[in-house]
Amino acid sequence: MSAGVTADGLAPADLPASLKAEVLLEALPYIHRFSGRVVVVKYGGNAMSTEGDDLKDFAGDIALLVAVGMRVVVVHGGGPQIGALLARLGKESAFVDGLRVTDGETLDVARMVLVGSVNRDLVGALNVAGAKAVGLSGEDARTITATARSPELGFVGDVANVDPQLLEQLMDDGIVPVVATIGTDGKGQAYNINADTAAGAVASALAAEKLVYLTDVEGVRRDAGDPATLASVLTVDELDELVTSGAVHTGMIPKAVSCADAVRGGVGQAHVLDGRIPHVLLLEIFTRAGVGTMVTA
Amino acid sequence: MSAGVTADGLAPADLPASLKAEVLLEALPYIHRFSGRVVVVKYGGNAMSTEGDDLKDFAGDIALLVAVGMRVVVVHGGGPQIGALLARLGKESAFVDGLRVTDGETLDVARMVLVGSVNRDLVGALNVAGAKAVGLSGEDARTITATARSPELGFVGDVANVDPQLLEQLMDDGIVPVVATIGTDGKGQAYNINADTAAGAVASALAAEKLVYLTDVEGVRRDAGDPATLASVLTVDELDELVTSGAVHTGMIPKAVSCADAVRGGVGQAHVLDGRIPHVLLLEIFTRAGVGTMVTA
Amino acid sequence: MSAGVTADGLAPADLPASLKAEVLLEALPYIHRFSGRVVVVKYGGNAMSTEGDDLKDFAGDIALLVAVGMRVVVVHGGGPQIGALLARLGKESAFVDGLRVTDGETLDVARMVLVGSVNRDLVGALNVAGAKAVGLSGEDARTITATARSPELGFVGDVANVDPQLLEQLMDDGIVPVVATIGTDGKGQAYNINADTAAGAVASALAAEKLVYLTDVEGVRRDAGDPATLASVLTVDELDELVTSGAVHTGMIPKAVSCADAVRGGVGQAHVLDGRIPHVLLLEIFTRAGVGTMVTA
Amino acid sequence: MSAGVTADGLAPADLPASLKAEVLLEALPYIHRFSGRVVVVKYGGNAMSTEGDDLKDFAGDIALLVAVGMRVVVVHGGGPQIGALLARLGKESAFVDGLRVTDGETLDVARMVLVGSVNRDLVGALNVAGAKAVGLSGEDARTITATARSPELGFVGDVANVDPQLLEQLMDDGIVPVVATIGTDGKGQAYNINADTAAGAVASALAAEKLVYLTDVEGVRRDAGDPATLASVLTVDELDELVTSGAVHTGMIPKAVSCADAVRGGVGQAHVLDGRIPHVLLLEIFTRAGVGTMVTA
Amino acid sequence: MSAGVTADGLAPADLPASLKAEVLLEALPYIHRFSGRVVVVKYGGNAMSTEGDDLKDFAGDIALLVAVGMRVVVVHGGGPQIGALLARLGKESAFVDGLRVTDGETLDVARMVLVGSVNRDLVGALNVAGAKAVGLSGEDARTITATARSPELGFVGDVANVDPQLLEQLMDDGIVPVVATIGTDGKGQAYNINADTAAGAVASALAAEKLVYLTDVEGVRRDAGDPATLASVLTVDELDELVTSGAVHTGMIPKAVSCADAVRGGVGQAHVLDGRIPHVLLLEIFTRAGVGTMVTA
Amino acid sequence: MSAGVTADGLAPADLPASLKAEVLLEALPYIHRFSGRVVVVKYGGNAMSTEGDDLKDFAGDIALLVAVGMRVVVVHGGGPQIGALLARLGKESAFVDGLRVTDGETLDVARMVLVGSVNRDLVGALNVAGAKAVGLSGEDARTITATARSPELGFVGDVANVDPQLLEQLMDDGIVPVVATIGTDGKGQAYNINADTAAGAVASALAAEKLVYLTDVEGVRRDAGDPATLASVLTVDELDELVTSGAVHTGMIPKAVSCADAVRGGVGQAHVLDGRIPHVLLLEIFTRAGVGTMVTA
Repeated sequence: MSAGVTADGLAPADLPASLKAEVLLEALPYIHRFSGRVVVVKYGGNAMSTEGDDLKDFAGDIALLVAVGMRVVVVHGGGPQIGALLARLGKESAFVDGLRVTDGETLDVARMVLVGSVNRDLVGALNVAGAKAVGLSGEDARTITATARSPELGFVGDVANVDPQLLEQLMDDGIVPVVATIGTDGKGQAYNINADTAAGAVASALAAEKLVYLTDVEGVRRDAGDPATLASVLTVDELDELVTSGAVHTGMIPKAVSCADAVRGGVGQAHVLDGRIPHVLLLEIFTRAGVGTMVTA
Repeated sequence: MSAGVTADGLAPADLPASLKAEVLLEALPYIHRFSGRVVVVKYGGNAMSTEGDDLKDFAGDIALLVAVGMRVVVVHGGGPQIGALLARLGKESAFVDGLRVTDGETLDVARMVLVGSVNRDLVGALNVAGAKAVGLSGEDARTITATARSPELGFVGDVANVDPQLLEQLMDDGIVPVVATIGTDGKGQAYNINADTAAGAVASALAAEKLVYLTDVEGVRRDAGDPATLASVLTVDELDELVTSGAVHTGMIPKAVSCADAVRGGVGQAHVLDGRIPHVLLLEIFTRAGVGTMVTA
Repeated sequence: MSAGVTADGLAPADLPASLKAEVLLEALPYIHRFSGRVVVVKYGGNAMSTEGDDLKDFAGDIALLVAVGMRVVVVHGGGPQIGALLARLGKESAFVDGLRVTDGETLDVARMVLVGSVNRDLVGALNVAGAKAVGLSGEDARTITATARSPELGFVGDVANVDPQLLEQLMDDGIVPVVATIGTDGKGQAYNINADTAAGAVASALAAEKLVYLTDVEGVRRDAGDPATLASVLTVDELDELVTSGAVHTGMIPKAVSCADAVRGGVGQAHVLDGRIPHVLLLEIFTRAGVGTMVTA
Repeated sequence: MSAGVTADGLAPADLPASLKAEVLLEALPYIHRFSGRVVVVKYGGNAMSTEGDDLKDFAGDIALLVAVGMRVVVVHGGGPQIGALLARLGKESAFVDGLRVTDGETLDVARMVLVGSVNRDLVGALNVAGAKAVGLSGEDARTITATARSPELGFVGDVANVDPQLLEQLMDDGIVPVVATIGTDGKGQAYNINADTAAGAVASALAAEKLVYLTDVEGVRRDAGDPATLASVLTVDELDELVTSGAVHTGMIPKAVSCADAVRGGVGQAHVLDGRIPHVLLLEIFTRAGVGTMVTA
Repeated sequence: MSAGVTADGLAPADLPASLKAEVLLEALPYIHRFSGRVVVVKYGGNAMSTEGDDLKDFAGDIALLVAVGMRVVVVHGGGPQIGALLARLGKESAFVDGLRVTDGETLDVARMVLVGSVNRDLVGALNVAGAKAVGLSGEDARTITATARSPELGFVGDVANVDPQLLEQLMDDGIVPVVATIGTDGKGQAYNINADTAAGAVASALAAEKLVYLTDVEGVRRDAGDPATLASVLTVDELDELVTSGAVHTGMIPKAVSCADAVRGGVGQAHVLDGRIPHVLLLEIFTRAGVGTMVTA
Repeated sequence: MSAGVTADGLAPADLPASLKAEVLLEALPYIHRFSGRVVVVKYGGNAMSTEGDDLKDFAGDIALLVAVGMRVVVVHGGGPQIGALLARLGKESAFVDGLRVTDGETLDVARMVLVGSVNRDLVGALNVAGAKAVGLSGEDARTITATARSPELGFVGDVANVDPQLLEQLMDDGIVPVVATIGTDGKGQAYNINADTAAGAVASALAAEKLVYLTDVEGVRRDAGDPATLASVLTVDELDELVTSGAVHTGMIPKAVSCADAVRGGVGQAHVLDGRIPHVLLLEIFTRAGVGTMVTA
């Protein structure tokens, strides 16, 4: 009997009790394997909502990971939401090579949106789902220090260092840190940092077992234009080649580079998953189902 | 669509991935609720095998409870197995009021079978399932102290005291204690103790959240002869009445009395479950399905 | 020689070394007395800047308290800043009894401003001053739970409970929690809470030694219109009377009520200080100089 | 005055109090030296009873070692007792090179006898003597993993690994682990392991200070047939030579090989003592009296 | 055979090994009973030397108590040694009611002798015996605070309070505190305190199991003039009566009063022992031999 | 305005409150820098009183260092006081190369004076100042072991080893150890050790951040006879040269050699300060004022 045919449309309530038990037991070896390990999840971006059922589903997934003993950090950006508030305020931005020039006012807006809005929504959803979440900016306890990328981009920053101590302490206390990727330099100046890059740096600093990017694509393709070339597993070297050859491009580049850097920096595996699939995080971690692209050493 | 009709015969592999995820998530509130709590499970007796798939299933269920953060103690007897070895050795027993008179040789046999055979099989199965199990006799670290029930019964003992310290230490270290219900008096004399009674005493001493009896019946009936009178929930007072009135009788009596004593002694709930249902332990703990009889204050 | 005459205008560099040493030693008994004790400081409001030298001075003062062993929590509001952003966005507010009706959009703006702007500025200044600060919303780890004050006010909340655990953990790790007074109910709905009231509730939950309000007035006057009636010390009963009689009014009411509640709830002393005096916090804690109003049992 | 002449036959009660005190004080440097150190004692075999006064004396000796601060593990076999039960059950064994072929039924019997009888008697005696003992099989928490020695011997195992964690945890809690030398492979299959060999492996895994074999001979002789060649001290190289040359033979071989392996594996000293001498363990550890054979690097 | 006849003059070396072992084992129940318990020993006074073999024996006894797990505090005075130095310095003392009037110079001498000489000799002997000892004055960390007994006696003090914290910390680290009974008031003024009284106060503050006075008499007599009236056991009430009736007098009074106070203050038992008997401390604690007088509730 | 002119003669009470605050804040970076670090201070010698205001000032300074989080050890000698008591006792000393020959009686006197008098005065003053001090001899817990310098000098010792454990434990408990520099050999023989040398050895053993000598000179001069050649900073090599060339001589030699040894042994900086300047310790640590001579790598 194929799952695609007769079991489609079933809800948990339809299942016989013993079948439910077997589904739970299927997760047992994965729980044993990942218990006590760190998983860094990058959430957000264009395709994923920070409200409604998507967010609720995501929060439930994270709560389950924590409930079975994993140590989870959520990292997020919020480009679209920043753009929306800038638009409402009538603030126009210049762009250099496709990157928004971030002056002081833009930075203030970005910080308000990321720390005071997107981050809050995630924390709220996680708390409702039963995880104990604490929202952080990279500025807190100087967790993420940053340097300016280039003078003409203003307060766009690169990660100089990630201090994992606060994140470790919170996770020791059973808390899920939710990190908005604002960094700070030694003088207190804030910088807006690409969230994909920051997630990789956080995963490396924590020597995470897994780094997971939830995106709006199925994974990494060997040929960007051909869905049939979706790669299930890539080594870091293969991934480098795809970046160099241009097969990986635009928004996937920081993810791909960060995946490779993180795995080279000691992270067990990095994953690019399709966040549009409900509960894709659980599927990746708790089942044999191959989803998205896994990057390994 | 009703589960009894179209989903019967499905295996986990037949299910769509997202349905599996939803089954896992259904367990989340129960994981939150029971994480860090003590569950004492009485296993064994006539109806349950200590070998083959039944044992393997049981071990998997226990391993899952532990993996999601519960503290589990398994208590077991082994009357049939004791009888079998006595028979092989040609040792005949006298009986008083249906209880086997336990002379020194009978005690030695009982102890060998319980501690050196039944207990070992349980520990082995749990270790294979991924739980870290340690087999104990109640003699170890004087965990269960006993007194003789009556002179004519020989070394049949009643629980005088349960010292929970060793059990707590092992559980703190992530270990599942598996307890054979041999007790000891101050002078080093061993006694064979009814496993149902001992399980209740262990649960009380640990202030367990749940005490679960896995049996070969569906639960407690208000009228022993009428399957339709199976009680889903009973208060300790109702249970007392059923014992007094004789509605509960024979092998169910020590279970029923122990359930009532344990709940009165601070245990959250006591359960009489049908061990013949596969994974009944998981169903009771992780789903809304009502199975067996629950005894509450 | 009187301080008002010849020492005015001196800078530290002008002082003989031994005089500096004596000033340091004057602080010794206060360091002994408050070491390891909790001090909750309410910062902000109309009169105090969250930028420039005022903020830098304040951050230095807090850093010194922490450096000599105190456990400090900073609580802040940000009414004026919220009003400014609402104005820029062209969002008009209704008012009931002088309180702004807080609909969903207003709440979002308030949260962005408090958590993503005012809070950030405080954290940044503290980090630069050498204190290790972490910005929090009351939503984090469900630290502040809230209930709606009245249906017509929308998402204006009253404190239902303060869970001190996260604050204690952070302070144990040598961190200064900086709390924006957004609360949450059980369903994840956020509420904007009066910062003066929240500060008092936080101080009570932590059994603080001191609760300090930095304001733009000299202290509490027995007769609001007569500066000569500034009270150095008030008992909670005297303070109640001043509130009842109307001598204390408008913006001072939540501070006065919170001072009395906190002291009755176990806080050692509550203070209303004039934040316009440079380093008034250090003066209050480390010197015999009487500044502002102290409320005691 | 020679001890052999006038003090023979004295009981402690006959001794003047100050002489008793001096005996106690003679032990002081040895207590200082061995406090907190691990001593692994192999007990059992042909010559030593697991009942009566011998066992009681042994238990008292162990209790004293623990009382003055040593960390003690007892390891035991039980060949004669296994043979006796097999005989009672009418089970005949084949032998290969003098080793009993161990089929499934033989293994079950061996395990019952070792874990459910010999081990229990030791635990009981230790508990009565005031030590807190816990009986273990090597299967518990997968402490001893094993591999089959050869297909024709059935379930006769060699030690693959000793995981010292459970033993360390129990000793940390002031408990004496008593280990029956049943091992397990990854699939839950049990194996019967030579107790002398297992004792050495346990001592190495614990980096024990001392490994002591209690036997029914005076020690190791340089010439097996000549009592006058009893060696007080042997280096591991000398011992190897005695094994190679055949001077050490039969039952002494596993002990000799294990002594040499253990000392090479980091154990301070290994001892072959004559268990027929009352309290020989105390004499070896607490007095200058040279007893048995000591093996050193 | 009677000990007085044939075993007299025996040295440990004369004893058969097994007899030594039995003597060690006789101590086992006492080691179990007193392990981890606090024993306060008052040493010194007229009859006991702080040099030579007496001191060496005493130090060995203390080292043995510590080695088997007891927590020991030594308290000492040094009246004769103080008198000797005063005499050498030609300093004459006035006496009031038999008590030396202690002016500033006398106090300085007393403190030098107690802290800088007697205390040092004890610490040195204990260190050589293998105990880790630290000498303390009651002034250290304000352990003993004192008040003047009467203006005319000068710096003769009574114990106002004993703070057990430093003593507990040192014992936690395996150290024997050796306390010279100088106390201090809040202003740093030192006082000389009767060592018998101070020992009792220290024992009460530590809730000691035993308080032992080593003296130069056999114990407490019911009739001071009649050696046959030596009391083996006295209740605190009986002891009070002996003090009131004058049966206990002179130097025994502070000991007797302190024994009664200590037992009433929670100390298990107090003992007056004859320090002239070699190793009397070991005999009292480790054997059934009744020595001296025991005071119980 | 120059400090030397108009602010001279000011008392703290004369200063405006805000100026006091600024003085406190000037100390903040130094508090951050030295918090948790070890500072060893050598006190005493000819020029510094162990009584009166000097001692009180010194004790206050130490109390402040401890209050702001430093770990402080005070080391002291007492040559003049030893000489005074020897004189009073009519004990004449022989001298070899300017060093007092220390026979047994002289050693007893030295120990009484150092441990029972000078040490006590320091402990008393520190306790009054609010630091929790414990007086130690190097003999305590065998902290300082010593060897004889030469047979003809008797009990004059050199440091063989410093065991930092007791000092670390006391500092962990918030206590200031005050060390009299008597050492001991393995047999319990005490030795009098040069306090300057011992202070350096203590600092090395603790890997101190700072070693400070409080002396009666301004610092180290490059030309002993020329006050204008006072060196603010010296490298260890420069200091060696000054010793070799004879520019540093007499009492400064052990200080200079110990400074160089300590810095080479891992101590951050060593200082020779003028103890006659009030609060010179605070000035050195908490201000930018350059005082005395600093020795660095």
